[in-house]
Amino acid sequence: MRRKEREIKDAVIVHQILSQSSVCRLAIHDEPYPYIVPLNYGYKENALYFHCALAGRKLELIKQNNKVGFEIEFDSEVIKGAESCQWTTHYRSVIGTGEIELITDTDGKSHGLDVIMQQHGKKDNTYEPKVLEKALVLKLKIVSFTAKQAGDWT
Amino acid sequence: MRRKEREIKDAVIVHQILSQSSVCRLAIHDEPYPYIVPLNYGYKENALYFHCALAGRKLELIKQNNKVGFEIEFDSEVIKGAESCQWTTHYRSVIGTGEIELITDTDGKSHGLDVIMQQHGKKDNTYEPKVLEKALVLKLKIVSFTAKQAGDWT
Repeated sequence: MRRKEREIKDAVIVHQILSQSSVCRLAIHDEPYPYIVPLNYGYKENALYFHCALAGRKLELIKQNNKVGFEIEFDSEVIKGAESCQWTTHYRSVIGTGEIELITDTDGKSHGLDVIMQQHGKKDNTYEPKVLEKALVLKLKIVSFTAKQAGDWT
Repeated sequence: MRRKEREIKDAVIVHQILSQSSVCRLAIHDEPYPYIVPLNYGYKENALYFHCALAGRKLELIKQNNKVGFEIEFDSEVIKGAESCQWTTHYRSVIGTGEIELITDTDGKSHGLDVIMQQHGKKDNTYEPKVLEKALVLKLKIVSFTAKQAGDWT
């Protein structure tokens, strides 16, 4: 990170960003251009969980290379200034890397979907068997991250 | 795109997403993990413009490989349902690929910064010479994109 004054070193704030946001973008290896996709997610015990269909570009690319980048933003907003050079952005973000495991067993899928639903405020969840059959869960184990902020967060 | 019913084929809506959003995420080639970074941007004539410092990881990676992925979201929101399987997301997004050119001349940098500032609603802009000296502009020429939506947009 070039601007060290923007780094968040407080683990409580990092946990808050990861557990209170709703969209995570994944950067996935592909050639000649990397692939990027936004997904709703859930966060638990140093891992991010995503719902995934049984087919599609994302899944095929992850099967080839499970090493991904991820990015989560919290409360991003442009702050206008009087002069052009005084404009800035108010945000908190986590940028990191991880390795994805495909969760294919029914209990594992239920658990992953629970984490995702709980992130969005729904605690008691049941899933129709046909829905579980038609889905996978992607578990991203976080390998590294940096957290940044700008603007007034006092 | 797996779910064809979600594709946006109306160029007016695509233009609206690109010209009314404020954050673009870039996926940049790196090993072993791709790098992802959120940036404020401006959109004009099939190109995205970004402010960039004269040093940093993003710039070094782009100098090695200027082929990137990009992603822009418009009005993303989770829509709660009565049952777990009825939850969904309301969003419009553009996902694409592009090639980045480094803009290093003063007039080009001023033009790029104008595009960025105009995207955020500031029309008449002046830049201090020392600010222009300390910055680059990245111009991403859009090579391909797909636009998607879900939820009720009527």
